[in-house]
Amino acid sequence: MKTWLLTAAIAAAFGAQADEGMWQPHQLPELAATLKAKGLEINPESISKLTEFPMNAVISLGGCTASFVSPKGLVVTNHHCAYGSIQYNSTAEKNLLADGFLAKTFADELPAAPGSRVYVTESLTNVTADIKAGLENATGDAFYKGVEAKEKSLVAECEKDAGYRCSVYSFHGGLEYYLIKQMEIRDVRLVHNPAASVGKYGGDIDNWMWPRHTGDYSFYRAYVGKDGKPADFSKDNVPYEPKSFLKVSAKGVKDGDFVMVTGYPGSTNRYRTAYEVENQFTWNYPASKELRERVIDIIKTTAPDGSDERIKYESTLASLANYAKNFGSMIESYGKSSMLADRKAREAELAAWIKADAKREAQYGKTLTELERLVAESKKDQELDLILGYMSYSTPMSTASRLYRLAHEKLLADMEREPGYQERDMTRFVAGLERIDRRYDAKVDQAILFEMLKRYAALPADKRRADIDAFFDIGKKFDEKKLKKQLDKMYAKTEIGNKDVRMAWMEKSVDDFKASKDPFIQLAVATFDTSMAREKAEKALGGELMKVRPAYMEAIIAYNKEQGKPVYADANSSLRVTYGNVKGYSPKDGQYSVPFTRLEGITQKDTGVEPFDAPKAQLELIKAKQYGDFYVKDIDSVPVNFLSTVDTTGGNSGSPTLNGRAELVGLLFDGVYESIIGDWNYDDNINRSIHVDSRYMLWVMKYLDNADNLLAEMEIVE
Amino acid sequence: MKTWLLTAAIAAAFGAQADEGMWQPHQLPELAATLKAKGLEINPESISKLTEFPMNAVISLGGCTASFVSPKGLVVTNHHCAYGSIQYNSTAEKNLLADGFLAKTFADELPAAPGSRVYVTESLTNVTADIKAGLENATGDAFYKGVEAKEKSLVAECEKDAGYRCSVYSFHGGLEYYLIKQMEIRDVRLVHNPAASVGKYGGDIDNWMWPRHTGDYSFYRAYVGKDGKPADFSKDNVPYEPKSFLKVSAKGVKDGDFVMVTGYPGSTNRYRTAYEVENQFTWNYPASKELRERVIDIIKTTAPDGSDERIKYESTLASLANYAKNFGSMIESYGKSSMLADRKAREAELAAWIKADAKREAQYGKTLTELERLVAESKKDQELDLILGYMSYSTPMSTASRLYRLAHEKLLADMEREPGYQERDMTRFVAGLERIDRRYDAKVDQAILFEMLKRYAALPADKRRADIDAFFDIGKKFDEKKLKKQLDKMYAKTEIGNKDVRMAWMEKSVDDFKASKDPFIQLAVATFDTSMAREKAEKALGGELMKVRPAYMEAIIAYNKEQGKPVYADANSSLRVTYGNVKGYSPKDGQYSVPFTRLEGITQKDTGVEPFDAPKAQLELIKAKQYGDFYVKDIDSVPVNFLSTVDTTGGNSGSPTLNGRAELVGLLFDGVYESIIGDWNYDDNINRSIHVDSRYMLWVMKYLDNADNLLAEMEIVE
Repeated sequence: MKTWLLTAAIAAAFGAQADEGMWQPHQLPELAATLKAKGLEINPESISKLTEFPMNAVISLGGCTASFVSPKGLVVTNHHCAYGSIQYNSTAEKNLLADGFLAKTFADELPAAPGSRVYVTESLTNVTADIKAGLENATGDAFYKGVEAKEKSLVAECEKDAGYRCSVYSFHGGLEYYLIKQMEIRDVRLVHNPAASVGKYGGDIDNWMWPRHTGDYSFYRAYVGKDGKPADFSKDNVPYEPKSFLKVSAKGVKDGDFVMVTGYPGSTNRYRTAYEVENQFTWNYPASKELRERVIDIIKTTAPDGSDERIKYESTLASLANYAKNFGSMIESYGKSSMLADRKAREAELAAWIKADAKREAQYGKTLTELERLVAESKKDQELDLILGYMSYSTPMSTASRLYRLAHEKLLADMEREPGYQERDMTRFVAGLERIDRRYDAKVDQAILFEMLKRYAALPADKRRADIDAFFDIGKKFDEKKLKKQLDKMYAKTEIGNKDVRMAWMEKSVDDFKASKDPFIQLAVATFDTSMAREKAEKALGGELMKVRPAYMEAIIAYNKEQGKPVYADANSSLRVTYGNVKGYSPKDGQYSVPFTRLEGITQKDTGVEPFDAPKAQLELIKAKQYGDFYVKDIDSVPVNFLSTVDTTGGNSGSPTLNGRAELVGLLFDGVYESIIGDWNYDDNINRSIHVDSRYMLWVMKYLDNADNLLAEMEIVE
Repeated sequence: MKTWLLTAAIAAAFGAQADEGMWQPHQLPELAATLKAKGLEINPESISKLTEFPMNAVISLGGCTASFVSPKGLVVTNHHCAYGSIQYNSTAEKNLLADGFLAKTFADELPAAPGSRVYVTESLTNVTADIKAGLENATGDAFYKGVEAKEKSLVAECEKDAGYRCSVYSFHGGLEYYLIKQMEIRDVRLVHNPAASVGKYGGDIDNWMWPRHTGDYSFYRAYVGKDGKPADFSKDNVPYEPKSFLKVSAKGVKDGDFVMVTGYPGSTNRYRTAYEVENQFTWNYPASKELRERVIDIIKTTAPDGSDERIKYESTLASLANYAKNFGSMIESYGKSSMLADRKAREAELAAWIKADAKREAQYGKTLTELERLVAESKKDQELDLILGYMSYSTPMSTASRLYRLAHEKLLADMEREPGYQERDMTRFVAGLERIDRRYDAKVDQAILFEMLKRYAALPADKRRADIDAFFDIGKKFDEKKLKKQLDKMYAKTEIGNKDVRMAWMEKSVDDFKASKDPFIQLAVATFDTSMAREKAEKALGGELMKVRPAYMEAIIAYNKEQGKPVYADANSSLRVTYGNVKGYSPKDGQYSVPFTRLEGITQKDTGVEPFDAPKAQLELIKAKQYGDFYVKDIDSVPVNFLSTVDTTGGNSGSPTLNGRAELVGLLFDGVYESIIGDWNYDDNINRSIHVDSRYMLWVMKYLDNADNLLAEMEIVE
């Protein structure tokens, strides 16, 4: 397998091949021939315009994607994207999570969780020139701050239009900047969700996995004021009437069919250098995984199964384990792939192309070297950075630091403050301080901090920090017992564990902190200056990278352009289009994952125990082969989920999956296990996205949940 | 899935459908049309004759199957079938297991492990009439003993011919008896085996699993005296010249091709009644699994990981866990299948057919009821029997019992003794007593016995045994502490743990035992009479079953005959033929196991750590795509293992897999996980056997092991 992939990858070089690519809509006309050949029936031009069908039907929920599916502002997204709202409306007596929910009339619709938003993109403007104007000679910190200031002013100007949210997105590491203006609909209501035993079937166990049988869909509705403008929740509000909406396909797709997905992918690393790749996969992920697993061990040992302490750490454990698994998958995939060799090969190709032309040599001859120098610079303290990162699992340590920083930030005008410390962040800040009571145990915390300090002390002297060394008396010789004693005293004395005390610190001055006898406040004070200096240096380096990485990307783009290949930018939470085909894959030699799962697979998996506890009525329908209108002969059943080659990542959740006529044939909701490494490297053979099939959604709505009102409201096409 | 299988199974009723069936060779002409349609090219008549090609090339190793592949007595079988001989010839300096072995000349061949045999079937005689003559009116114990005596005399008569082993096999639970005469070749030599990292690649982890990449083959050679007759090992012996041998195919098979397997399957339960099935799967397997897992827990707790005691119990643990997994698979498969409903449906069909005809009603009208009565009778103490069974994990308890029984058996003439206590068994008896030193720890043993006695004490009084109750003072009230004290004393006092003491008891008389103060000897004496009485009752019941089960099978056969369907007998270690096609399967919805694995799959699995530690030279050949003569375009590689629908079970290991021209295209060596329940129920959708592909064997022999001498000796055909 290895050598075969190598060949394929070398042939691909830098340019996106096959179905790789998260395209900016305006790039689609360049891909017209490919799209048409693959099965796109509508004009690629139309997809390139954000204010035309179908793009204006695709909306963001912030972190998730969704789409309009009726002229009355009905929105479909994933169940896991609406989860917070379902939970918010659930009570012990009326458990919408467990039982599902269907508003039979508009009046029955329930307010979504506080903060729920629907963002409708209205315009997109290339502001690269504005951003860079006057910064031609700025470097480092000055460039970083200059760009930040320009962004803030563009956003402020744009947001003068009430009811809109504006953001500046950087593409290709700062080669281009776009200002995106979105209508921000604030009155969002929950319309319908299946029971969690359908919508979250398989739960965390099936997460990232195929075969999959999850009915991961739910419905919202967007409401606006009578004037058609965004408004706070009010009974007088009216359903928003979108410029267009998607028709829902009852015919669906079959193996090999063209599909495309429009949505808001969060972040990828497809253009990182070989050096960055190697460092990430051979140092960062393995080291992080090891640390995570060590912290898991410490928590499990210090807070045994069934103890009260353990309950406080269950969600921390779940998250630690989740990413340990994620990193494990990446390390495993990396070991099997030729990713590093491929990156090196394409860098060599690029270098040869640059060298072949004097003008190019003058322009880009030193770019890669310079980029690698800056990256190396940013990694020079990575051992220390990683340990400090995991030290923040110590609640009194990180809380005292954040509180002390707040005291400093409050000295600045609100607009000047660091994100996270502005007035608009305070509700969340308080909530964070409150949550500690349910998540903190001093014994566990101390064990973790002790472990991290031991690892810190094991670093060579020139890799440590003088301030931390001094505070914990870590010098040439490290006395573990003495450190243990010091921590014993610190945890005995600190009052950060007391909620009222924590809250009180929010109001105190820098001098109050300096005068405090609380050992963790003292630690925060003692380490503040160095931490700030380090942050400043990081930002300066960031500023330099914001100049060099664009040059590197410019070279890549020019090289590919010469070969007639367009280049897509790494994901950055902005609207993208990706296309491909319905297709299975071989997760390993001797096995093939077929592209569709069937209703009968639900029965096969069912144990009656959550998360494999399908509703009895559903199991009976399946047993009786009540396929109804959605029977598919090829699979002798109703399709549940399907696989495709489209190129997606986190943030794409809830994205509409469209056929060649831009009809909704499914909702994207996950990728397969072997795709976890996909954020770094798209591999045509194993990168597969997972979609809920529209026919399964319609089948459940019609035969299990009797959502006739919604079925009538949507335009369902054959 | 469930309902779909149900329909298929009902249609199948009793008669073997599709590729189900382990056929006695003489039945094959009945299946001629099917065989021809499926792809058999040679005359089915020829396969029905044991003394003609290809059947006379198929041999038994006792527990495994093998075949002749050269005119000079070269034998091919599984690596795991020759394992003992490879281990026997290995030393620290010359480790044939680790490094593999190839005799470049006949003189280099090594004696196989002591006791290794090659059995060549020479004749098969229906002796039903002889066996049953004079026993028409015998019942119960008398019938059981009568049959046993007849069998012994037929065997003794047959074995007068020196160099032959004869056995009587019962078919259909005693409907038919066949005397099988086999030449017993005693000089067996190891010729060639790949390294364990090829021959056992994947080890216990991949056992029962697909995808599979095991090179499970090895070569023996059969030697006879210069007179052509079986002889003990001697340098003067000459290679045996078989009447025929199999040609080895370098072309192999492809997806869908016809294959057949000839071999010696051990035991199946395809004709058990619905009542037996239900009891086995809803009581016996779950209860056994629970007990096994409890014993595993006790061992793990009492002998912690890394302790000396744990080392003694590692193989016991492995075996306990292996069958807990096996039972788990069966319970799991049963829960997903419609097996019970199918059995009930076919029993109802049979009952209706019997009832429809007065003659049939007279003959079989009461058979099923009577069979169920006897089976119920045999199960009436199953809770007790199961606990007593697991009590035998107590070494002093079971050892003392066996020693005391030996004292009794020795009072009888050797031929009259119970199997296991005859003179020919004594070597193994002594070895068993010696082995205890390496496998027994008093603390662990006591913890297991204590648990079993507690479970025993929890049985209702009428389900317990008076002798055991009396010995452990278990009455209406059970005093756990008192039992604990008694066991403490027993283990402190017993000398069964001392090897010399154990050995000495082999020579002692019944009276010596009765006079002993050893508490476990006293327990053996106290429980002997009841145990013997229970055994006698069991044999009497066995005798009754030996009359009723044949009648039941006779009805089934008559019913199927009327529909033109032949019926195969449950496996009984006699020579059978099964046929089918190369075919993948779906282990679960959304996944498909493709029928061939590829060389690249080895590289994918390889971790460098046993059992995934392929030889470096092999990995390099694969990396360099050195497919040589055995490249297959369809899979762009050399096939390693393949799946087929043939119906096999334990004992079939090493069986030649033949194409339509009876050329060797592979060796059967395992079944997939979902087939574990196959011994009870063959399911066309999931029953798959696993074969080593002949092309993989030839590829390794040619390019990795340079076994040119053997490649030249075999007749390899395209």
